[in-house]
Amino acid sequence: MSFRADILTLYPEMFPGNLGMSLSGKALERGDWQLAATSIRDYATDKHRSVDDTPSGGGAGMVLRADILAKAIDDVTEVDDPRPRLLMSPRGKPLTQERARELAQGPGVIIVCGRFEGVDERVIEARNLEEVSIGDYILSGGEMAATIVLDAVVRLLPGVMGNHESGETESFENGLLEHPHYTRPQEFEGRLVPEVLTSGNHRLIDEWRLDQSRKLTQERRPDLWAAYLAKNDG
Amino acid sequence: MSFRADILTLYPEMFPGNLGMSLSGKALERGDWQLAATSIRDYATDKHRSVDDTPSGGGAGMVLRADILAKAIDDVTEVDDPRPRLLMSPRGKPLTQERARELAQGPGVIIVCGRFEGVDERVIEARNLEEVSIGDYILSGGEMAATIVLDAVVRLLPGVMGNHESGETESFENGLLEHPHYTRPQEFEGRLVPEVLTSGNHRLIDEWRLDQSRKLTQERRPDLWAAYLAKNDG
Repeated sequence: MSFRADILTLYPEMFPGNLGMSLSGKALERGDWQLAATSIRDYATDKHRSVDDTPSGGGAGMVLRADILAKAIDDVTEVDDPRPRLLMSPRGKPLTQERARELAQGPGVIIVCGRFEGVDERVIEARNLEEVSIGDYILSGGEMAATIVLDAVVRLLPGVMGNHESGETESFENGLLEHPHYTRPQEFEGRLVPEVLTSGNHRLIDEWRLDQSRKLTQERRPDLWAAYLAKNDG
Repeated sequence: MSFRADILTLYPEMFPGNLGMSLSGKALERGDWQLAATSIRDYATDKHRSVDDTPSGGGAGMVLRADILAKAIDDVTEVDDPRPRLLMSPRGKPLTQERARELAQGPGVIIVCGRFEGVDERVIEARNLEEVSIGDYILSGGEMAATIVLDAVVRLLPGVMGNHESGETESFENGLLEHPHYTRPQEFEGRLVPEVLTSGNHRLIDEWRLDQSRKLTQERRPDLWAAYLAKNDG
């Protein structure tokens, strides 16, 4: 059984979208993973096919109805479906490389894409939805966020990455930002490739790269740097 | 002059992609913003149209060449082009709602989408590229990350959001996560809308919502909670 992603959305036409191209698209064609997008609107019950209503207690925006979303979830989920059910939401737990790796080791994922002001809290509780955020900014909806989760996960599935792409994987896994990269030409607008990189001394090269990674992380991401120091006892 | 985004990518066919649909797509049609994607490969100089080379000092993956990317950037950039030049990269400064708002108030943006192991450091320096990350996870390339930046920015452009969508805007702007939302039906699988929300007492409703926001933020995002307390003097 390959990894299977079910998306619940008001914009099923957004899938596969860019996930149908490049690395994830080739993997989809090969059957390394499967993707299905289901329209939440198909579960509406009135003649206007409405799925949202005004917020209880007043306020701007519209709220996705619990009953309609629950029906959609139940319909794409088999009894005892072991897949985690994510709800893309800026309130959620931030996505990390570690979480992407966990998801990639599992059977797949069900992703609900939020729209409007939000989703009725009761369906989040009743259907055990795990709120996941891709970052501290607001998007027009959860569809692009779902695309990010799937891109991060699919590249980690067995057989998807060749050697060509795989080097970057460890980027967040040692807890440091990547060191700078250089390639030919040796000189670019008067700027040279750092001498150590053309020395042929692999010990020195590794030391230089680690040193650069540490400096960059300390400078740009005090939060990651503190976590790195804690993990490596200073 | 409307907001103009120039994307430099090896996958120009990924644009507008999902940005051509829904909120940002309608805004694109109306001319509220403009989008052009340029293929970096068009600036290759050899017969194989290669744009990358092996990393100086060895290692996995391939590095995007400084000279070729510089030519592409120079070609889409006018003299004294005031637009910031972003490079999507997991090493970059994390995107925030505040940064999205800043970008939305400016003339536009140039976004370079990284691929392969990385981009030659010298072009980042020489062309003053600002590395921006959408989160601490690795994607197959910068294209989907660029889509996220643009979606976050475009919804904030004048005239793009109607009242229908605008409620959520303040989500990160008071530094707290959103309170729970509810809507009809009043009962869902035995779960009721909290009584306070149907009380009609707006002062109590506002208090309840703020209290819920504070609790959620404290529970889920100690980092945001600490920043909120610091800003609001406890």
